[in-house]
Amino acid sequence: MKIGFIGGHGHHYLTEILRDGDHDAAWAGDAHDNDAARAKCDRLGLTAWYDDARSMLERFRPDVVNIGAVYGYNGDAIAEVLERGIPVVSDKPVAATEAQLERLRRLVTGDARLITEFPFRSRPPFRAAHDAVLAGRVGDPVLATAQKSYRFNARPAWFGDRAAYGGTMLWVASHAIDAIEYVTGRRFIRVTGRGGNVAKPEYAEMEDHCVLIGELEGGATAVVHADYLRPSGAETHGDDRLRLAGSTGVLEVRDGACSLIDISGNSVIHPAATPVPVGRALLAAALGHDTSLYGTERSLRTAALLLACRRAADDETWVQL
Amino acid sequence: MKIGFIGGHGHHYLTEILRDGDHDAAWAGDAHDNDAARAKCDRLGLTAWYDDARSMLERFRPDVVNIGAVYGYNGDAIAEVLERGIPVVSDKPVAATEAQLERLRRLVTGDARLITEFPFRSRPPFRAAHDAVLAGRVGDPVLATAQKSYRFNARPAWFGDRAAYGGTMLWVASHAIDAIEYVTGRRFIRVTGRGGNVAKPEYAEMEDHCVLIGELEGGATAVVHADYLRPSGAETHGDDRLRLAGSTGVLEVRDGACSLIDISGNSVIHPAATPVPVGRALLAAALGHDTSLYGTERSLRTAALLLACRRAADDETWVQL
Repeated sequence: MKIGFIGGHGHHYLTEILRDGDHDAAWAGDAHDNDAARAKCDRLGLTAWYDDARSMLERFRPDVVNIGAVYGYNGDAIAEVLERGIPVVSDKPVAATEAQLERLRRLVTGDARLITEFPFRSRPPFRAAHDAVLAGRVGDPVLATAQKSYRFNARPAWFGDRAAYGGTMLWVASHAIDAIEYVTGRRFIRVTGRGGNVAKPEYAEMEDHCVLIGELEGGATAVVHADYLRPSGAETHGDDRLRLAGSTGVLEVRDGACSLIDISGNSVIHPAATPVPVGRALLAAALGHDTSLYGTERSLRTAALLLACRRAADDETWVQL
Repeated sequence: MKIGFIGGHGHHYLTEILRDGDHDAAWAGDAHDNDAARAKCDRLGLTAWYDDARSMLERFRPDVVNIGAVYGYNGDAIAEVLERGIPVVSDKPVAATEAQLERLRRLVTGDARLITEFPFRSRPPFRAAHDAVLAGRVGDPVLATAQKSYRFNARPAWFGDRAAYGGTMLWVASHAIDAIEYVTGRRFIRVTGRGGNVAKPEYAEMEDHCVLIGELEGGATAVVHADYLRPSGAETHGDDRLRLAGSTGVLEVRDGACSLIDISGNSVIHPAATPVPVGRALLAAALGHDTSLYGTERSLRTAALLLACRRAADDETWVQL
């Protein structure tokens, strides 16, 4: 299979596939930070480098493309690929503006496929939580809370530019927002939030933290908070958590494990089956083989949800979905 | 000293004082659930029982009164006591309606003293967090999140009556709201929230969970969530947590301890000095000897804040304070 990569940021989970078998790969710049893209290409020892994504698409003719551009411009790169009828796996956000989202909606017709990387769905503790809810082990979902906390370390200057960065709701909180829908099986129907930048004033338009609350289907409530304040002395880069209080049990993902408290006590729980590694799961979705976890309609719906969450927080207003 | 008690609910922290020395105590009903009050009186082996709070005030003539009525009616009992010029220590909420709050405001003039029981201020892990912030160990507060989660067990039927119960924002989330102001040293200036009742429909007007987000002074953000969903199999009755991410450190109260992560790693931290037990601290405030932790102005301001939080959640709207 021929796999094309675009951009120098994000995760490019399809690079995991390159180890799996006999694939051809090429890498292209995103026109916003080609140095970063070139560095990724070089680190993988790939020789097929293109300065320009269009050249790569036209000359390399990939079967699938994996995008990780400067975050605010994923949507532009995705559109270039979809216009050529090639399936896309992209870093989030797939749309950082309503205009990008509209363009993607127009392009996603017929069997076009746009898959968003939300790897929590493929991680064992979040899968364990999802499976426990599905098996009725917490009863009805009532209150879901999720945390994202990262070390900031050094970040590119464009994090301070809303157009390039997209916002912390799209880049960080998005994982938690998607994870809540995934684990609870309930969609957000109404949201508000806020954000701010207290500690990183040199990144002028970035939020160093943001929060979201919302109503989920069935009368449940969700809370998400994200921050870049994890100290350098912390043991790990990220501190991802999710807690779901249900009518008969409380489950919690923390420190890479999932625990469940119910009437019989506290136990560590595991997924019903070992998750397929994220790169393979994303590829299977992009090829239309398995869209149970990742899919085109879900990509667009989540993109719209995230833009609504960002707008709600920007304006500190309640937004109906 | 003569200590009068009113009501059969809440905590009556001044009962701790009875062990300290030679005090006289009397107990009175709150006219809403006298059986519960009488049971408390009997459990303490007190013989001075009054069916009616006014009789107790007029005949026993207490030096200080400690109130724990059916929650929605604390404010009425407080007013009765303040009208007689006697200092009050009360369970929260001290006002469950704007009318109660207005009445208290009119009565709190001169050296009248109304102290609200917010015992987190006297608990070592929350004190440790407060002291760490004051010592600059987390830098500027950025994102404060707090959780209250209780077992529901069996509760009186009046929990299902908003007028009697007051709401989960006032009864449960209030601890977390006060703790955030206490630990961060920053006041709420703008809030919204929501709540719902998914799992306890037999308590018709009660929220089985509620959430609040708000802006704190200095651009920081606060998140509070409270629920009655802690399973009976949990190790402890409550699961109180507070996390504060600051510009240089993150502190967290959980499982009865406070930890701090900063540039040098993760450590358990302790208060600068052992807190005075809550009953003695509340009494000292009521007598005007030490209002550093608990005070009349703070009681009224927090009561107004809590009513605003409840209104914001009831209406799902942003409320400016």
